[in-house]
Amino acid sequence: MAAPREALYFPASQRQQLDSYLPSPSITSTSSVSSKPHVTLTFATSLDSQLALAPGVQTALSGPESKAMTHYLRSKHDAILIGVGTAIADNPSLNCRIEGVGGYGGEGLYGQPRPIVLDPKGRWEISAESKVVKLAREGKGKAPWIITKTDVGEQKRSLLESVGGKFLRYGDSFGGVEASLSARMEWRGMLQLLSREGIQGVMIEGGGVVINDLLSADNLELVDSVILTIAPTWLGRGGVQVCPEQRQGLGRSLPAGRLKDVNWMPLGEDVVLCGRPQ
Amino acid sequence: MAAPREALYFPASQRQQLDSYLPSPSITSTSSVSSKPHVTLTFATSLDSQLALAPGVQTALSGPESKAMTHYLRSKHDAILIGVGTAIADNPSLNCRIEGVGGYGGEGLYGQPRPIVLDPKGRWEISAESKVVKLAREGKGKAPWIITKTDVGEQKRSLLESVGGKFLRYGDSFGGVEASLSARMEWRGMLQLLSREGIQGVMIEGGGVVINDLLSADNLELVDSVILTIAPTWLGRGGVQVCPEQRQGLGRSLPAGRLKDVNWMPLGEDVVLCGRPQ
Repeated sequence: MAAPREALYFPASQRQQLDSYLPSPSITSTSSVSSKPHVTLTFATSLDSQLALAPGVQTALSGPESKAMTHYLRSKHDAILIGVGTAIADNPSLNCRIEGVGGYGGEGLYGQPRPIVLDPKGRWEISAESKVVKLAREGKGKAPWIITKTDVGEQKRSLLESVGGKFLRYGDSFGGVEASLSARMEWRGMLQLLSREGIQGVMIEGGGVVINDLLSADNLELVDSVILTIAPTWLGRGGVQVCPEQRQGLGRSLPAGRLKDVNWMPLGEDVVLCGRPQ
Repeated sequence: MAAPREALYFPASQRQQLDSYLPSPSITSTSSVSSKPHVTLTFATSLDSQLALAPGVQTALSGPESKAMTHYLRSKHDAILIGVGTAIADNPSLNCRIEGVGGYGGEGLYGQPRPIVLDPKGRWEISAESKVVKLAREGKGKAPWIITKTDVGEQKRSLLESVGGKFLRYGDSFGGVEASLSARMEWRGMLQLLSREGIQGVMIEGGGVVINDLLSADNLELVDSVILTIAPTWLGRGGVQVCPEQRQGLGRSLPAGRLKDVNWMPLGEDVVLCGRPQ
């Protein structure tokens, strides 16, 4: 079967530089219920560490090579997770268009990741017009899961279930726990929930709130790999910035975090940084 | 003459990747009085585009390879320029320690750049203990020039002149010009002043105020090359950030600036980005 015209191609030489940072399909955890999936945090910024010119404004930053890389990465994860702000602002497709995956030259939904939207307060008005829903209907992507803490309306639930998606409730198990502890445990709890749902590798793509939260000292240990694209542009003050909270230690400020096992890969006009949190 | 132990080494293969972004010694402008020197803007940031954990706090960011590169770059410019804030906070050496230059295996002051401090209001209390003064006395660096708009005391002047340095006055020629126009013309005026003093290539190293000012839309055209080192670290909120003013056009925000002729060079754990403003 020939790949459709919109399929993307990412060369083998570049794939090899990424593969050691990705979930390993051969290692299946024997205690997957209590453990968490491999977490790959991936995003693209300007030189001034910004994702967009302003909140809600989609900003073209990285070049076509980076786009192909993102879709290759998606093919290597069971799921893609984004925050609700990005879902509302971008109406994203969240599928994989690398050539050979299901819907793009391959059979069924082979290689398609599960789109997951983190929407604690049920803000996302998912509809039949949402791109993720359309793509699921067309067989070009898996149906979305929405992680929420709140009761969702029957209309949204039936729409989501009609294409094979579902809502996942979380946070109930922390009901008796002190609020501050609960906040720190939320990411771990969510990732354990995904693990129980069979997700062994999740790629977290944004937006700013989610990224800064995961890069904070409390949460960084939950991240297995970071794959960051940097474009040779300054967006300027007032945009959506990746800049986590500073860490405090011995009465002074410390760097928030550092990567080890670093690889820098020039890609078109951009550079891709792969690393693991120290 | 053997190079002293503290001399730094920067390999030829990496030099070659930088050289096309540096001042060309073979081309001497025939109208150097009215033109400006080649301006190389160079600095090192974290992934969240920060120079330091807090104002006035020297923060080790880039690795030893980047340090050797910085000293190689210094050997290729007639002058290094920094803002007064950096001079006060860091008491910097501002000389060149690449092996083979004067004081580090070479004769006289061969390859040593002129240290220049931009100090419009005369805030820097330069003294016999300042590193630049000591290095000038020891023959390991040129004596500094200080660019100022104000009258400086006789004590500072005689100290500076005793090691071969001097104060340069600027801004007088804008006395009759409207204030806002004057502010926009200041960098151009200063660079013309340096050109008249025989400086054909100047490397501007910081700090945050100077860098953000030069990256703004008004001034970016004065910059010929940018050589930026990025370390795989997030410093976190509250540091000294490189993030210029956004540009406005057609009623909306536009990216502040972009580089062309881009080269990304991995260097130890860091990456070095070379480019020219578009």
